Amino acid sequence: MPLESLSWSDQEEQIARQVFELAYRRELSATLAYVRQVAATIDSPDALWQLHDFLSAKRHEMDGKYDARSSMLIFVFADLIKNGWISLEELQGLDKEKLTRIAALTRI
Amino acid sequence: MPLESLSWSDQEEQIARQVFELAYRRELSATLAYVRQVAATIDSPDALWQLHDFLSAKRHEMDGKYDARSSMLIFVFADLIKNGWISLEELQGLDKEKLTRIAALTRI
Repeated sequence: MPLESLSWSDQEEQIARQVFELAYRRELSATLAYVRQVAATIDSPDALWQLHDFLSAKRHEMDGKYDARSSMLIFVFADLIKNGWISLEELQGLDKEKLTRIAALTRI
Repeated sequence: MPLESLSWSDQEEQIARQVFELAYRRELSATLAYVRQVAATIDSPDALWQLHDFLSAKRHEMDGKYDARSSMLIFVFADLIKNGWISLEELQGLDKEKLTRIAALTRI
């Protein structure tokens, strides 16, 4: 079954939204901690503009990654697991096929 | 005499370069202090991306403003005085015509 055709029950959509928001808050929190740490120590133009480059890249990445369209969720969750923002266990409640596909995507 | 025709003695070029670097360091230092202050308190995505927007604008502004071509220095110094980064007194040693032109530009 193509991913676009996977149907999401109301309960699954609720789980997905919660985990999605959890991952976003975690990644944002880690980003904030990093920015605070860097900001406290930078003392040169290069370091300041490197922080700017980092924020440009992170914003672009997060804008692209946190795509809540249902057809994208399988990929988004696999990516979030690979990058350590969530665990597969936190997605319990999704049906077995989705979990299997997500787990498979984390291995490639 | 058009500004492009103003000649700069070696001594004047040295004064200009020193004041120019002083202004850059002051503006950078103020920017760093602001970034540290903001970074220590942001707790939302909006605030983080506002910091990014601020850095984008500041970088663009500073890249444009700190233009060390001799033909631009009169304008650059007038702008730096208007924005409080240097004083006219710190440019003492430039010839009277340049100081008069810079002072005039700070009033428009």
